[in-house]
Amino acid sequence: MTISRPNGEEEVGLSATTTGLDLFGTDRTVVAMRRRGELVDLAHELQDGDVVEPVLMGEPDGLAIVRHSAAHVAAQAVQHLVPSAKLGIGPPIVDGFYYDFQTEPLTPEDLTAIEKQMGQIVREKQKFVRRPVSDDDARVELANEPFKLELISLKGSASDADGSSVEVGAGELTIYDNVRRDGSVAWKDLCRGPHVPHTGYIQAVALTKVSAAYWRGDQRNATLQRVYGTAWATRDDLKAYQTRMVEAAKRDHRKLGAELDLFSFPDEIGSGLAVFHPKGATIRMEMEDYSRRRHVAENYSFVNTPHLTKSKLYETSGHLEWYADGMYPPMRMDAEYDADGNLTKQGADYYMKPMNCPMHNLIYASRGRSYRELPLRLFEFGTVYRNEKSGVVHGLTRARGFTQDDAHIYCTRDQMRDELERLLQFVLELLKDYGLDDFYLEVSSKNPEKFVGDDATWEEATSTLREVATASGLELVEDPGGAAFYGPKISVQAKDAIGRTWQMSTIQLDFNLPELFELEYQASDGTRQRPVMIHRALFGSIERFFGVLTEHYAGAFPAWLAPVQVLGIPVASEFDDYLGEILSTLHQRGIRTELDTSDDRFGKKIRNAQKQKVPFMLIAGGDDRDAGSVSFRYRDGSQRNGVPKDQAIDEIVAFVGSRVNEGPSADA
Amino acid sequence: MTISRPNGEEEVGLSATTTGLDLFGTDRTVVAMRRRGELVDLAHELQDGDVVEPVLMGEPDGLAIVRHSAAHVAAQAVQHLVPSAKLGIGPPIVDGFYYDFQTEPLTPEDLTAIEKQMGQIVREKQKFVRRPVSDDDARVELANEPFKLELISLKGSASDADGSSVEVGAGELTIYDNVRRDGSVAWKDLCRGPHVPHTGYIQAVALTKVSAAYWRGDQRNATLQRVYGTAWATRDDLKAYQTRMVEAAKRDHRKLGAELDLFSFPDEIGSGLAVFHPKGATIRMEMEDYSRRRHVAENYSFVNTPHLTKSKLYETSGHLEWYADGMYPPMRMDAEYDADGNLTKQGADYYMKPMNCPMHNLIYASRGRSYRELPLRLFEFGTVYRNEKSGVVHGLTRARGFTQDDAHIYCTRDQMRDELERLLQFVLELLKDYGLDDFYLEVSSKNPEKFVGDDATWEEATSTLREVATASGLELVEDPGGAAFYGPKISVQAKDAIGRTWQMSTIQLDFNLPELFELEYQASDGTRQRPVMIHRALFGSIERFFGVLTEHYAGAFPAWLAPVQVLGIPVASEFDDYLGEILSTLHQRGIRTELDTSDDRFGKKIRNAQKQKVPFMLIAGGDDRDAGSVSFRYRDGSQRNGVPKDQAIDEIVAFVGSRVNEGPSADA
Repeated sequence: MTISRPNGEEEVGLSATTTGLDLFGTDRTVVAMRRRGELVDLAHELQDGDVVEPVLMGEPDGLAIVRHSAAHVAAQAVQHLVPSAKLGIGPPIVDGFYYDFQTEPLTPEDLTAIEKQMGQIVREKQKFVRRPVSDDDARVELANEPFKLELISLKGSASDADGSSVEVGAGELTIYDNVRRDGSVAWKDLCRGPHVPHTGYIQAVALTKVSAAYWRGDQRNATLQRVYGTAWATRDDLKAYQTRMVEAAKRDHRKLGAELDLFSFPDEIGSGLAVFHPKGATIRMEMEDYSRRRHVAENYSFVNTPHLTKSKLYETSGHLEWYADGMYPPMRMDAEYDADGNLTKQGADYYMKPMNCPMHNLIYASRGRSYRELPLRLFEFGTVYRNEKSGVVHGLTRARGFTQDDAHIYCTRDQMRDELERLLQFVLELLKDYGLDDFYLEVSSKNPEKFVGDDATWEEATSTLREVATASGLELVEDPGGAAFYGPKISVQAKDAIGRTWQMSTIQLDFNLPELFELEYQASDGTRQRPVMIHRALFGSIERFFGVLTEHYAGAFPAWLAPVQVLGIPVASEFDDYLGEILSTLHQRGIRTELDTSDDRFGKKIRNAQKQKVPFMLIAGGDDRDAGSVSFRYRDGSQRNGVPKDQAIDEIVAFVGSRVNEGPSADA
Repeated sequence: MTISRPNGEEEVGLSATTTGLDLFGTDRTVVAMRRRGELVDLAHELQDGDVVEPVLMGEPDGLAIVRHSAAHVAAQAVQHLVPSAKLGIGPPIVDGFYYDFQTEPLTPEDLTAIEKQMGQIVREKQKFVRRPVSDDDARVELANEPFKLELISLKGSASDADGSSVEVGAGELTIYDNVRRDGSVAWKDLCRGPHVPHTGYIQAVALTKVSAAYWRGDQRNATLQRVYGTAWATRDDLKAYQTRMVEAAKRDHRKLGAELDLFSFPDEIGSGLAVFHPKGATIRMEMEDYSRRRHVAENYSFVNTPHLTKSKLYETSGHLEWYADGMYPPMRMDAEYDADGNLTKQGADYYMKPMNCPMHNLIYASRGRSYRELPLRLFEFGTVYRNEKSGVVHGLTRARGFTQDDAHIYCTRDQMRDELERLLQFVLELLKDYGLDDFYLEVSSKNPEKFVGDDATWEEATSTLREVATASGLELVEDPGGAAFYGPKISVQAKDAIGRTWQMSTIQLDFNLPELFELEYQASDGTRQRPVMIHRALFGSIERFFGVLTEHYAGAFPAWLAPVQVLGIPVASEFDDYLGEILSTLHQRGIRTELDTSDDRFGKKIRNAQKQKVPFMLIAGGDDRDAGSVSFRYRDGSQRNGVPKDQAIDEIVAFVGSRVNEGPSADA
C-alpha cells in the first residue's frame, strides 16, 4: 500500500491496515490528519493511494481538535461528579471550549473539583474511539440524554449557529467512546469528531467560568449551565494566555470607566445605554473633534439627520424586511379617532434608526445631482440604536446605542479606485493618529449563494478592493464568501498594546441601495447614471473605539486626549494661589487643568493623581514660589524640579498640541 | 356725582346717569375704560366715587378690545353671506383675531366677500350693546347655535385654553347686540365683552387666511373653518404690519432653507423631523462649535446621554405623570416568553427623551459630591423628541426633534446669585456674538395656585432673579404667576432685524428635581445638603435658533457662519486653474470655498452667487492672472479689482476669523 503527502512525498510498502497512528503516532504534536483534505482521527484506516498530512496541535485546526477533545473530558468529569447532569453540546470556540449541562447551578468550587477530575481523566490516557451507529441504536444508547435525543431527531437540519453541528452532521451518526486501558468504556458522547488519539494529549487545559445559557440559544428553551474552559498546545501557551487575560481584566474598559469616572450604564436608563460623565465626554469630544477636522480637510460634507423615522424609509431600504429583529420596536403615532373611538386618520409607525445610510440617501436624492458634484462624501456622527440581545451586550464595545462616524460616498465607477485608495490611506493615517499602528486587512468577497448585482460588477469591485489593499503593503487576509449580499468589503483589523485584534474600520461597496433609492446623477454626456455607493466607518462606533482605546492605553490616555491634562498639587495649601495662577494661564491656552485643594496630605495627592493617570502633575512649594518655578512629575514616576513657570507652560502647551501618543516623561 | 382718575384728579357734579361715553366718547382713540381696575364698555353706567381711566386703542388692552370687536364684525359678515354657518368662538389673539364657523370650506374669494361685507358693517356704525340674560333665555335666543348652547352648559368650567372664556365666564351670561341707527338688531353674540362703542371704531382691519380647526381644540370634535384677521389702532399700523408680513414671508426660513439647500423635511421621515443638507449642517456645526468653545472657556463640563430610556427614569422625574402627552409613545422591550407563550421575564417600556435634565441628574448622583466641586455645570447638545401636534409643527422653529444647548448647574444657595449674574452676562454676550443685540428680559414669578417648595425660598430666588435682571440694565417685564410649578425663571426676548420678538434663552430655577432625585453634596461642615439646580438653554434649541438666524439675516449669513465663504468665478474656463489654486490655499487655511465650473455664462454665475448669498465672490480673468491679482465682488454688488492674491487671501482669512456679523463690502 502506498500513501503520499500533499507535497508528493510517498511512503510505499505499507501494510493494508495502516492508520495515521502508524505514521504519526509517536509524535505527540500531531493530533489528527488531513485525508484527501478532510480532517479525520489518526486511528482512521488508510487506503492505498490516500494523500495524507499530519495536523499539528499548534495550527488552528489542531487547536480546535484539542479544545473539542477537552470539552469531552470536561463533560465526563462533570457527569462523574454529578451523575444526574444531562448533556447539552460542547463545541470548541476561540481560545477554548464550552460544554452545556442541565443541572443545578455550578459554583466556582464545583469548577475546581471538575478540573481536578479532568486531571485524573487525562492521566488515564483514555482512547477516543469512533463508532458509527444507526439512529435507532443511538436512541437506545442515549436514552438518558434528552438533549442528545432531540439532536438525533434534528439530524441534518440543526443549524451551525448553536454549535450542534459538532454533534450531528447530515450523514451517519457516530459515537465516541472514551476507553480505559483495560478496555472498559469510561464515558461516551454523540459526536462527529475528529479527536486526539487519547486524553493524555490534553496537557494544557483550564476551566475559566460558568454561566447560564439557553438550550440551542433560544430563550424559550431550558436554561443550562455552560462550563467554559481554555486549552492550548503547550503549558507555556496556556500560561501566556492566562497572563494576557489577567492583563486584559486590569485594562477592562468597564472597570477603568468606573475607576476613572468616565462613563456608566445607569439601571434607570437600561441595558447597553451609556452616559458619559464629564471626563469621559471630554475624551469623546476630543476624539470627535479631531476626527471632524480631518474629515473637513478631506472634503467631506457634513449632514445631520434625526434618530427616528416613519417605517416607510426602512421599507424602501429593506431594513424592515431583513433587519427588523435588530431594531427597537415601533412607536405608533398620529392616529386620530372620533368621539365614538373610530379611526379617522391612519397613524404611522416610527422606528429608531439602526443605520444612517437610508437618510443619507434621502439627502443625495433631495435634488438633481451632476457628475461635477461627485465624489459626494456625506458624513455624520450618527447615533443609532439596535436591539442587541441582553446576553451579548458588553460595555461600550457592544452597546445598544452608539454613534457611528459614518460616511457614505457617492461616486462614478471611474472614480471608485482613486476613492478607495485615498480612503484606505486616510483610515490608516487616522487610526495611527490615535495610537494604533499594527494592522492587517481582510477582504470579504461574494457569497455565491446570496448576492445582488451582476458578476462583472462584483468581479471588478472585488479585484479593485484587493489591489488597493495589496498596494497598502499590509498583510491581506481573504474572507471568501464573507461579503454582505449587497457588495464586497475591506476591513481593517488592528492589534492593541497587548496583542489582541479588534476589527476597526470597514469600507463596504453597495450595489443594492442606489437601486432601491433610484439614485442618479447626470453624466457629462447628459445621460442619467447610477452612482457607486461606499459605506465607511473609521472608528466603527465612537463608543466602541473609546472602549478599545481605554484598553489599549490601560486608561493612561495620550496627553491630547486626557480629560485632565495637568493636575496642580501644592506641597501645602498656602501654595494654592501660586499654582492656581499657573493653571489659569494654562486654561486660557486651552489646557484642561485641575487643582487638588482637598484635605488629603501631599503623598496621598500624588498617589491619587497617579491613579487618575494624569499626564502632567505640577508641584509647587516654597522654593518653587520663590524662584517662580514649578516641578514636573510624570505618570512613570520620573520628576523634573525647578522648571521656570513660563517654560513649563510653553512645554505643556507644545506637548499637548503635538498630539504625541506616548506619555511625557523626564527620561524621554 | 364725583368720579376720580387713578392719579387722583376728580370730576365733580356729574349727573347720576353718567357713562364713560359722557367722559370719553368724543375721543375716538378711547375704546373702553378701566373701572376699579376692571375693563368695561364706555356705555357702562358709573357710580359715585368710581375711579376710572380711559383705555386707549393703542395700548395692549385697547388693541385686544378692537380685535375682539372686529371678530364680531367678521362673524356678522359671514352669517350675512352664509346664513347656515354656525358660530364657534372668536377671541382676540396676537396681532389680530379669529372666528370659527361650522360651514363648507371657505375659499380666498369668500374672504374677499366677507371683508367687503365687514366694510359695510363698519360704515353702519352699529352700536355694541351689552345685555345680561338668564341661562334659559340665552338658550332660547341661541337655539340655532349648537356650539353656543354647549358653551352655556359648560359655563364656568370651560378652560381658557380654547378661548371660550371670552364667551362665557363664571358669572351671569351676557349677550352683545349689534344695533343699527334705526334701533333694529343686526346681529348678536354670546359674549363677556367689553367692546368698542360701535363698529365705526374698527377702521384698520383685514382678513388674512382661513384654516381648519377642531371645536374646542379636540380632534375628536367637529372640524370648523377658522377665519383669521388682523386689526390695528390706525391704518398706518395696519400697513406697517402688512409690510412686515411680506418681509417675513420673504425671510421665511422654510422657504430660504429650500432655496439655499440648507435642510428639508422628507415625507419618508415624518412631520417636524429635519434633515440638514451639507450647507445647513455646516452652519449648524459652526454654531455648535463656537458655542462649545465658549462653554469650555466658561468651565462647563460636557456630558453625553442616550436618546431613550426605560420609563423608570421619567417616573422618578414626574415627566410621565405631567408630560406624557408631549412624549412619543413607548417601545416595549426585553419581555421574554416560554414555549407556551407565558411571560417569563417582565419587559420595560422605553421612551424617547423629551428633556435632558433627568439624565444629567443621574450623572450628578453617580457618585458622592463635595462642595468643592460646585458649581458643577453639566452641558450637553442633547437631542430631544416631543410629540407636538401636527397642527403646531412649524419648520425648524417648532419641530418634533431638536437639539437643546442644554446645561444644568448645581450650586449651593450661597453661589446662586453669582452664578445667575455670570450666566445672564454669558447669555447676552453669546447672543450678541451671533448678531442679536436688542433684548428685554421677562421674569416669571410664582403661580400661587401651583408650586412646590416653601415661600421663603421662592421669595429669595425670585428677588435674586429680579435683581440680577435689573443689574443688567435691560428692560424688565414682569410675568406674574407665569413660573412653572418648580421654580421662577428669567427669559431673554430678542428682537430680530425686522422687529419681531423671539423668546431665546431661558434661565430656570428648580426646587423640585433635586428633591425627587435626592441630590446631595457634602458641605464644608460635613453635613449633607441639597444643591440648587438651574436649567438653562441659550439658543433654546439649535434648530429653532438656526431658523431665527436664517430669518434675521434673510439667509445672508455672516461670513464666519456662511456655508460657502468664498465662491470663485472665472471670467472664462481657462482661468479655472488660476482661481482654483487661490481657493486651495484658502481651503488649507480653513476657509470654505467653491469654484463655479458650470457651463453657465459669467453673468449667470454672478447672479447665482448673489442668490446663494455668498459673502466673498472672487473673480479672475486675464488681467488678474497676469498681475497675480484677483477681483472681489460682494453681496451688496460693490466690487474691488486688482487685489494682489496674497493680500486677498489674508484679508478673507482675517475677516472670517474676526466673526464680524456685518457682510464685507467694498464701501465699508
